[in-house]
Amino acid sequence: MPSYTAPTKDTQFILHDVLKVTETGIPGYEEMEASFTGAILEEAGKLSGEVLAPLNVIGDTEGCVLENGVVRTPAGFKEAFEEMKAGGWTGIDFPEEFGGQNMPYVMSTAVGEYFSAANQAFAMYQGLTHGAASAILTHGTEDQKATYLPNMVSCDWTGTMNLTEPHCGTDLGLMRTKAEPQGDGTYRISGQKIFISAGEHDMAENIIHLVLAKIPGGPEGIKGVSLFIVPKFLVNEDGSLGARNGVSCGKIEEKMGIHGNSTCVMNYDGATGYLLGEEHKGMRAMFTMMNEARLGVGMQGLAQADAAYQNAVAYAKDRLQGRDVTGAKNPDGPADPLIVHPDIRRALMDQKSFTEGARAFALWGAVMIDQAHRMSDADADGMISLLTPVIKGFMTDKGYDCTVAAQQVYGGHGYIEEWGMSQFTRDARIAMIYEGANGVQALDLVGRKLAQQGGKHVMAFFELVKSFCKDNAGADAGFDKDFVEPLKAASKDLQAAGMYFMQNGVKNPNNALAGSYDFMHMFGHVCLGLMWAMMGKAAQEALAEGAADAAFHETKLATGRYYMARQLPATAMHLARIQSGAEPVMALEAANF
Amino acid sequence: MPSYTAPTKDTQFILHDVLKVTETGIPGYEEMEASFTGAILEEAGKLSGEVLAPLNVIGDTEGCVLENGVVRTPAGFKEAFEEMKAGGWTGIDFPEEFGGQNMPYVMSTAVGEYFSAANQAFAMYQGLTHGAASAILTHGTEDQKATYLPNMVSCDWTGTMNLTEPHCGTDLGLMRTKAEPQGDGTYRISGQKIFISAGEHDMAENIIHLVLAKIPGGPEGIKGVSLFIVPKFLVNEDGSLGARNGVSCGKIEEKMGIHGNSTCVMNYDGATGYLLGEEHKGMRAMFTMMNEARLGVGMQGLAQADAAYQNAVAYAKDRLQGRDVTGAKNPDGPADPLIVHPDIRRALMDQKSFTEGARAFALWGAVMIDQAHRMSDADADGMISLLTPVIKGFMTDKGYDCTVAAQQVYGGHGYIEEWGMSQFTRDARIAMIYEGANGVQALDLVGRKLAQQGGKHVMAFFELVKSFCKDNAGADAGFDKDFVEPLKAASKDLQAAGMYFMQNGVKNPNNALAGSYDFMHMFGHVCLGLMWAMMGKAAQEALAEGAADAAFHETKLATGRYYMARQLPATAMHLARIQSGAEPVMALEAANF
Repeated sequence: MPSYTAPTKDTQFILHDVLKVTETGIPGYEEMEASFTGAILEEAGKLSGEVLAPLNVIGDTEGCVLENGVVRTPAGFKEAFEEMKAGGWTGIDFPEEFGGQNMPYVMSTAVGEYFSAANQAFAMYQGLTHGAASAILTHGTEDQKATYLPNMVSCDWTGTMNLTEPHCGTDLGLMRTKAEPQGDGTYRISGQKIFISAGEHDMAENIIHLVLAKIPGGPEGIKGVSLFIVPKFLVNEDGSLGARNGVSCGKIEEKMGIHGNSTCVMNYDGATGYLLGEEHKGMRAMFTMMNEARLGVGMQGLAQADAAYQNAVAYAKDRLQGRDVTGAKNPDGPADPLIVHPDIRRALMDQKSFTEGARAFALWGAVMIDQAHRMSDADADGMISLLTPVIKGFMTDKGYDCTVAAQQVYGGHGYIEEWGMSQFTRDARIAMIYEGANGVQALDLVGRKLAQQGGKHVMAFFELVKSFCKDNAGADAGFDKDFVEPLKAASKDLQAAGMYFMQNGVKNPNNALAGSYDFMHMFGHVCLGLMWAMMGKAAQEALAEGAADAAFHETKLATGRYYMARQLPATAMHLARIQSGAEPVMALEAANF
Repeated sequence: MPSYTAPTKDTQFILHDVLKVTETGIPGYEEMEASFTGAILEEAGKLSGEVLAPLNVIGDTEGCVLENGVVRTPAGFKEAFEEMKAGGWTGIDFPEEFGGQNMPYVMSTAVGEYFSAANQAFAMYQGLTHGAASAILTHGTEDQKATYLPNMVSCDWTGTMNLTEPHCGTDLGLMRTKAEPQGDGTYRISGQKIFISAGEHDMAENIIHLVLAKIPGGPEGIKGVSLFIVPKFLVNEDGSLGARNGVSCGKIEEKMGIHGNSTCVMNYDGATGYLLGEEHKGMRAMFTMMNEARLGVGMQGLAQADAAYQNAVAYAKDRLQGRDVTGAKNPDGPADPLIVHPDIRRALMDQKSFTEGARAFALWGAVMIDQAHRMSDADADGMISLLTPVIKGFMTDKGYDCTVAAQQVYGGHGYIEEWGMSQFTRDARIAMIYEGANGVQALDLVGRKLAQQGGKHVMAFFELVKSFCKDNAGADAGFDKDFVEPLKAASKDLQAAGMYFMQNGVKNPNNALAGSYDFMHMFGHVCLGLMWAMMGKAAQEALAEGAADAAFHETKLATGRYYMARQLPATAMHLARIQSGAEPVMALEAANF
C-alpha cells in the first residue's frame, strides 16, 4: 500500500529561503518565523501521513454508499474527520471571532497540499466547506455570518457549492433552478443540481449548501443568477437545528476516482433558501472565491503528483530488474535497482522537477492572495488573477501526467489496484475537469485575463522575469547558462506568443483562442522556470553561507537544472503551434469530423 | 452509452489509395481487390459495432469473477465469442490446412483494430490465442501443430503467454519457474506466473498455456529459458480431452481497466509441459512473435483513441454550451454546440490527426511483416524490427493521451462511469505497460535497433523519407509548404538526434539512453509525418482524378495539414531534450530523489 510523507523541509525552503515570507511586510506574516511554520507543517504532516494516507485506499475501495437518503462514508473517515477538527485544521485561516486561527492563506495552502496528497477524496469535505464559508464571510450579512460561520469553521457543519445542472456546466446562463421569493425575505428553491461534491454524508450535523438559482422575472442568462444559502436542516433562532429542509440527495455518481467523496445529485424541492449577497449578482459572489478555489485545485494536481512520485521512487530503489549498462551497481544481488536506468530517472526527474517547481508556484500564488486581501494590493490581485488559470490548468494537467508516469515506473504492478498507483491517476484526473475544465481555464487566460487593464498584469509578469534575469545575470557563468539563459529564452517565446495574439486576434479572435491551450502550458513552463531560477539562487546562497544540509541544496540545483534543460524547451513547440494560427484548427466543417 | 462505428472507408483509403496493396507484389496481395477487402471490413465492422461494442461497458462493470477455480466472464461474452468464431474471424491469417483463411497479416491487423476498438478486453481472448498459435505454427513439431492448431485457429481452445513472475517482468533472466525433464520427453513445470491475460475463463474447452521456464542445470539467466506448451486439459492421442493438468488460477487481479479480461495468477504445480522449439532457446521463440505482438498492442492504442474520439465528436456536436465568439452558429437554440469552440476543435483535431496517421502507420507496418514473411524480404524485416518499438511505444502513449483528451470534451460527464469515457482511458492505460513497458521499447529502439547492421535500417528509413520528399517537392507550392517542408524539418531533427547518440553514446551510453524516450516519440512523429504526407498526396491525386467523395479527400488534406503544423513541431523539443545529454538525468544520487 502506498505511503505518504509530507515534504515539510521543501515547504520550509520555499517559504523562508525563496519567498522570504517574514520580509514581505504582509500583515500577519511577521509571525511566520521558521520555527512557527515548521511546527505547524510537522503537525499537519503527521496527521496526513499517519491518519489520512492510510485511509486513502480504503476510501477508494469502499466508496460512499447511499441508503435511504443517507450517504455512508468509508470506514474510518468519520474518526479521521473528528481528528482533523480537533486539531483545529479546518479553520486555520479564518478570523478568530468565528473560531479560526487567523493565519495567512499561504499556511492553509501549504497544509492543504499535504491533506490532499494524503487523501484527496477526504480532504475535499473540508475544502468545500472552506470555500462555502469564505463566500459567507465575504458576502454574508452579520446575521448569516453569526449563524453559519462558527459551525462551518469548526466543520461541525460542512458546506457545498451547487452550480452544475444536467444540461449546463460551463455555460451557467442556461440554468433552470428557480428561487421564488416568499415575501418573508426567504426564497423557495426548486431544481436539480449535479456533481455536488460532499453533497450528502454522515460526518457533519448539518450541511450548508450554496446554490446558484434564478429569481423569476430577473435578467436573462448569466446576469439573472443569484446565490442562496440552503441548509440541510434549518437553523433556529437560538442556533439549534430545526426542521429538515426540502433538499435531498437523489443519487451518488459512480466515478473514475475520488470514490471516498460523495458526488451527489441534489434535488431541491421547494427548499427554503436565504439570499447571499445581492439579487442577480450570484456569479460575482462566486467569482470572488474563484482564485482561491482554483489555486486549491491546482494544488491537488501537485499533491497527487507528489504522492505518486514518492511511491515511485521507493519502488525504483527497491525493485531489482536489469543491470546498469555502465556497470553493475548491486553486483552481489540478482539485478540492479530500477533507479540505475536512465529512462527511469528521466521519468522520476520529470516528476520531481515538476512537483517542486509547482509547489513554489502555488505558494507564491497564495502569498499574492494574502497580499491582495490583507494589504488591498491591486497589483497583487491583478497578477494572481492572471496566473490563476495557469496554476489551475497547467498544474492539474502536468500533475496528472506525473501520476501516469509514476504508475508506469511500477510496470504491470502499476495497473493492479492492490498497489495503489492507479488510484493516484484516477483521483488526479478530476482536477483537470472540475472548478472550470482546463480548456475553460485557457479561454479565461487568453480571452479575458491577458487583456485586462490593457495587458497591465502580463506586462508586470514579464517585468518580473526580466528584472530577475537582470539582477542575477553575470555573477556566475554556470548559473547564467543553466538558469538565466533558458528562462530568458522561454520568456521570449511567451512574449512572442502574446504578440502573435495581439497582431492576429483582432482580425479573427480564433487566432488567439486556437492557441489558448498552448499558451496556458507555455505560461506554466515560464512560471516554473522562474520558480526554479529563484530556488536555484536561494540554494546557491544557502550553500555559499555554508548551510548545514549541503546535499539538500545541491539537489535543488540539480533538479532545477533538469527542469530548465528538459522542460523549458517545450515553450518553442507551443509557440510554433500557436503561430500556425486558427486555420488548421478551424478548417473542417463540423460534419467532417 | 458509447457507440462505435468501424472506419472502413478510412482503412480502404489506406490499403488502396496510399499503400496500393495490390501493386506490392507480395504473394496473396493480388487477391486484395478493393471489393474483397471492403466486404471483409464491412462484416468485421458490423460485428464490432453491433455485437462487441454493446458489451464493452458490461464487461467493465461486471468484470470477471473467480469461484471455485472457475472464472466467469461477463454476461454476453460467451455468445459473442461464439459469433466471432462462427464468422471465421479467429483464424483469418492462418494457413488453410489448420482451418484458417490464409489471408495476409495486414487484413488481420485491419480487422483487429475494429475488434479492439469495440471491446479491447474481449478481443484479447482471441488476440492472445493468435499469438500462442503463431508460436506453435513457427516453432512446433508437426505433431504439436496437428494437435493444437486446428482447435486454436477456431478458438475452440484459447491460448496464453506466461512470462512474468512476481519478482521479474522485464528482466526475465531472474525467472524461477522450473521445468524438470521426466525422461519421457515431457517436463514437469512448477512455479507461479502473474499477469496472465485470459489465463482462465469459461469460453473455451481447453486453454493452451505457453510457459517460459528454466530447465535445471541449464545456462544462468536469460540464456537458460525454454518455452513449453502446458495445456489446461491434456490432449489424448485421438485428440479428445484427457486429464486436468496441474495448472490452476490462484487469483484474478483487480485492475484499473480491461475488467472483462481475466488477468490471472497461474500456479503450475508439477504440470505436464511439452518443449516448444529448442531447449534454452525460449526467448528466441518468443522474439519471433514479438513484432506482431507489439504491433498488435500499438494498434490497441490507436483503437481506444478512435473509439473515444468518435464519442467525443458526437458529444461535441450534441452538447449546447456557450456561443461561438465569431457569431452564434445555433441562434435559435439556447447555446451553440461545443464543436464551435476553437479549443474543443484543437482537442478533436489532435485526436483525429493522430488516429488516422497511426492507422496508416500500423497498416504499413503490417504490410512490411507480410513482406518479410511471405517474400523472406530481409530489408522489410529489418525496417519493421526498427519501427516496432516506435509503433508500440509512441502509439500507445499518444493513444492514451487521446482517450484522456476525448474524456475531457465531456467535462464532468467524462469522469462519471455511466458515460463510458473513463473506460476508454482506463482500458487504454494497459497498452503502455504490457508487451514491454514503453520505456523498454525506447531502450530496445536506441540500445539495439538503431545500431543493427551498422545502422542500415535507420538509414533506409531516412532514405525513404528523403526520396518521398524529392519525388513530391516542387510540383505544388501548397503541398511543399504544408507537407514536404515540415516532414523534411522533422526528419532533420531526428537525424540530428541520431547523430548526437553516435557522437556521445560511445563515451557514455547514458547520453543515448537518457534520450531514448524522446527519440522514440520523435521517431513516431516523423513516421506519422511521412504517413500524412503520403495520405495527403493520395488525397490530392484522388481529387485531381475527380474522386466521387471530394469532402472525404479534402478532409484528409486538412487533417494532414493540422498534424504537420501542430504536431510535428514536437520534434525540435525532443531534440533539445536529447541534446542536453545524460548529465541532468543522472546527476542525483539515488538517496537524493
